[in-house]
Amino acid sequence: MLDVAVEEARAGLAEGGIPIGAALFAGDGTLLGRGHNRRVQDGDPSMHAETAAFKAAGRQRDYRTTIMVTTLSPCWYCSGLVRQFGIGAVVVGEAQTFSGGHDWLAEHGVDVTVLSDERCVGLMTDFIAARPDLWFEDIGEVP
Amino acid sequence: MLDVAVEEARAGLAEGGIPIGAALFAGDGTLLGRGHNRRVQDGDPSMHAETAAFKAAGRQRDYRTTIMVTTLSPCWYCSGLVRQFGIGAVVVGEAQTFSGGHDWLAEHGVDVTVLSDERCVGLMTDFIAARPDLWFEDIGEVP
Repeated sequence: MLDVAVEEARAGLAEGGIPIGAALFAGDGTLLGRGHNRRVQDGDPSMHAETAAFKAAGRQRDYRTTIMVTTLSPCWYCSGLVRQFGIGAVVVGEAQTFSGGHDWLAEHGVDVTVLSDERCVGLMTDFIAARPDLWFEDIGEVP
Repeated sequence: MLDVAVEEARAGLAEGGIPIGAALFAGDGTLLGRGHNRRVQDGDPSMHAETAAFKAAGRQRDYRTTIMVTTLSPCWYCSGLVRQFGIGAVVVGEAQTFSGGHDWLAEHGVDVTVLSDERCVGLMTDFIAARPDLWFEDIGEVP
């Protein structure tokens, strides 16, 4: 499932955007929605990878058995999304270059798996080095 | 400032949507963005009132002096938005019909003001009575 999120992150990078991707799956592995960060592409600060995947999945009545797969540890905004909608599980590609609210989600009963995927680490390491301005803007960090 | 959020909530109701509105203001009172819940109108579960106002404000580099005004206590999703982007203050029209993460925000240094605005209470009380299905879907509560 992480492959889909990585594809999304790479697509975002190819568009000149921030390389974070995500996908929401049903419990049986069916893909419900996929997306990537769209701050640069659409001038839209509300479309993080996870919110884009959540939006693409459309209206759903029950998220308890769904799985949010993301290339990077979810920020507080995206962690709040997971908690509010009761998404049952989160798979995180890596939490080395940024650590958001995944521990908080685990404390609140979400099944959290944190990987150390080299593709994900590489995408963000290179991007943060190349465009620190964009990265810090995306997480609301003021220099 | 709450008047703008109430106008947004009423506009959403008139469109057949969920009557929650919000607006993001600069510290000097300048309106940066306004919006309302768009689940019904756009089939978009990611557009809560606060995220709609945040999106409408476009890319901003520093939210520390901004004020998010919303007709209803922000859910975890919208509370996570406020925390991640460092929005300095939140004004809540009412927290009687629903209580989200506003206390958590206050614990994390956000200047939170909770009002008991009768217009806001009335909008949600009537809406929840009329369309409990839509309301519970919007906050991810499963019957």
